[in-house]
Amino acid sequence: MKFFLQKESDGARAALLETDHGKIESPVFMPVGTHATVKALSNRDLEICQAQIILGNTYHLYLRPGMDLMRKAGGLHSFMNWHKPILTDSGGFQVFSLAHLRKIKGDSITFRSHIDGSLHHFSPQHSIEIQRDLGSDIVMAFDECTPYPCSREQARHSLELTHRWEKASLEYFHESKARYGHSQALFAIVQGSVYEDLRTESVQFLSELSFDGYAIGGLAVGEPKAELLHLTAFTAKQLPKDKPRYLMGVGKPEDIVEAIARGVDMMDCVLPTRNARNGSLYTWAGKMNIKKAEFRDDFRPLDENCTCYTCQNHSRAYLHHLYRGKEISGLYLNSLHNIHFFLELTRKARQAILRGQFGLFYNDFRSHYPIEADHSEVNILHREKRRERHLTRDKQNK
Amino acid sequence: MKFFLQKESDGARAALLETDHGKIESPVFMPVGTHATVKALSNRDLEICQAQIILGNTYHLYLRPGMDLMRKAGGLHSFMNWHKPILTDSGGFQVFSLAHLRKIKGDSITFRSHIDGSLHHFSPQHSIEIQRDLGSDIVMAFDECTPYPCSREQARHSLELTHRWEKASLEYFHESKARYGHSQALFAIVQGSVYEDLRTESVQFLSELSFDGYAIGGLAVGEPKAELLHLTAFTAKQLPKDKPRYLMGVGKPEDIVEAIARGVDMMDCVLPTRNARNGSLYTWAGKMNIKKAEFRDDFRPLDENCTCYTCQNHSRAYLHHLYRGKEISGLYLNSLHNIHFFLELTRKARQAILRGQFGLFYNDFRSHYPIEADHSEVNILHREKRRERHLTRDKQNK
Repeated sequence: MKFFLQKESDGARAALLETDHGKIESPVFMPVGTHATVKALSNRDLEICQAQIILGNTYHLYLRPGMDLMRKAGGLHSFMNWHKPILTDSGGFQVFSLAHLRKIKGDSITFRSHIDGSLHHFSPQHSIEIQRDLGSDIVMAFDECTPYPCSREQARHSLELTHRWEKASLEYFHESKARYGHSQALFAIVQGSVYEDLRTESVQFLSELSFDGYAIGGLAVGEPKAELLHLTAFTAKQLPKDKPRYLMGVGKPEDIVEAIARGVDMMDCVLPTRNARNGSLYTWAGKMNIKKAEFRDDFRPLDENCTCYTCQNHSRAYLHHLYRGKEISGLYLNSLHNIHFFLELTRKARQAILRGQFGLFYNDFRSHYPIEADHSEVNILHREKRRERHLTRDKQNK
Repeated sequence: MKFFLQKESDGARAALLETDHGKIESPVFMPVGTHATVKALSNRDLEICQAQIILGNTYHLYLRPGMDLMRKAGGLHSFMNWHKPILTDSGGFQVFSLAHLRKIKGDSITFRSHIDGSLHHFSPQHSIEIQRDLGSDIVMAFDECTPYPCSREQARHSLELTHRWEKASLEYFHESKARYGHSQALFAIVQGSVYEDLRTESVQFLSELSFDGYAIGGLAVGEPKAELLHLTAFTAKQLPKDKPRYLMGVGKPEDIVEAIARGVDMMDCVLPTRNARNGSLYTWAGKMNIKKAEFRDDFRPLDENCTCYTCQNHSRAYLHHLYRGKEISGLYLNSLHNIHFFLELTRKARQAILRGQFGLFYNDFRSHYPIEADHSEVNILHREKRRERHLTRDKQNK
């Protein structure tokens, strides 16, 4: 993979990533295609929306359809007939968040599938091996994503593990070969939770190894918005300038714009597709929920300024009707709009950077787009209360 | 509406229907868009599949979104942004099959919505009034669809009611006006259950009135396949040659071909979309269920000879994977294929008729396409047993 930094403007970067499946112009939003499909959309829709790269989830694809089938299919590109770039995660995040009965022993995690309870093992080598079978253009190193909140001790211990695993990932990546005639790149993931010194240590450790790009991990996991933005800037600033920077799991439109302002090149998030299925739709004037009664007889498009198929063809009233009737075509039209919006947002940011006017774009966006309230502290309180209740219940049950 | 009979070949007809929303080339299959959407598909998909006309369901649209909204939207074409022809049913069939607590008093039916239990009234005038509000290109007269089996006495009584209602529909149709600047046509529905003399009586009664087309109703309601085919031929033969003939609710691909062979011009059915959502997919070699394990690693397209987006782009293995994962995009790709197949089937039939070679097409289809077993007798037995059980239970509860 080749990386060309094309332009910087007010802290934001426009760059070009060249893969064997084509070029990626950044800043870029990557739609998430967990199970070899971006939910509710076809490849044709993604092409019309000008998606440049999509994500696949290693954990999910490993469990279903499984790697025997993936090899027979000739990799994920062939299996889903998507011939633009694909990035796969390492599977670590899902093993920690979805799988059951996880046990770490040395550098191997044993877990049970969340689908059928079957027993599996993951290790850095295993994760890379699966991503070789998937044939993604960008492979992610195997790491542990710290939760939030996370004690310093916990973060330090996790970081040591993560660094060992990432080094092992890199070694196995070099020992193994790409399988389908196109080359693959390997990205590292910076961890360190909310601790600046650990973040710096992580950047230093990983920068000395020859990764093709650097992701910022362990953020967008429930921390306050200010922490997310500060740590993104703090980490991005220290990363090599001549390598792509990927902020994992971000985020809302306002977070994407802030991340770009802090020098991030790549982002991914399930928000546009997941929210579409819940009727939450993004417009240049903010988020709106199409199920609300006020849209019942609103014959305007979702967004007057949007060029997507949904806005060019259908009214809020029609989308409201489809949503209330639980129509699949409603989920489709909503998903199409949201994915278009996220892609258009990063395209507009890129154009502004190339013009050397990212600051103008940033101010314009901030002055029009209503920023959602930061509920992270309330969410953390809820999580802690829930944990206390569980602990109390467990004690009573003993 | 203008109707031109273009060619006859081995009993089959090719014709042209001209509406203010464009031409319809028959024989034609009409995808069903119950709630102002053909399930899982967008208008763009329907256009790519070359759908010429779609159906809307009066009962469903009357309940949701309702006629206040429909008038505000400027009719169904505007509401769903579909600008090709639309046919709406009269709502009668759904009132009898879906609604609760039906009571017929004179020419008015009182019923409760199957959605929220709210109380409504339907009459011939009411049905036409709603279809005026919908603005469909083809309006159906209000009738009663007899169930199967149906006693002669019941069928005779129902036919008298139906004829009175259809006459009232026609009168109200002439009294009322089209509302959105395009003209509407009115079709009659021939009833009479399985009784030849009643069918003949119905054809004679309705032919003397000036309807724009004639539907064959009361079939495809559970009668044996032989009855369906015999009564279709028996009825079609007596209908005016210079008017379109529409066989309601038919059917499977083999039924469609048989209906065309008996001089039918128009058909509709929920099978292609409903079955798509159950993983039942139609190919030129018969129906296949994509959930079967044998398709797990079958990398061929659904149908080698199919030109639809799904077959041109995806393998059985991929569709199997999407189906098992309950992916919306799987429902979409399946629906797209099935609708394409049904439309292609009638297009091929039409081309054969225009070449004067329908017999060849018919024989070729019959020799390749495996006809499904006729389960109607078993289904009838099941229905009767269920009814007996209900009666016994009701008696015991007293």
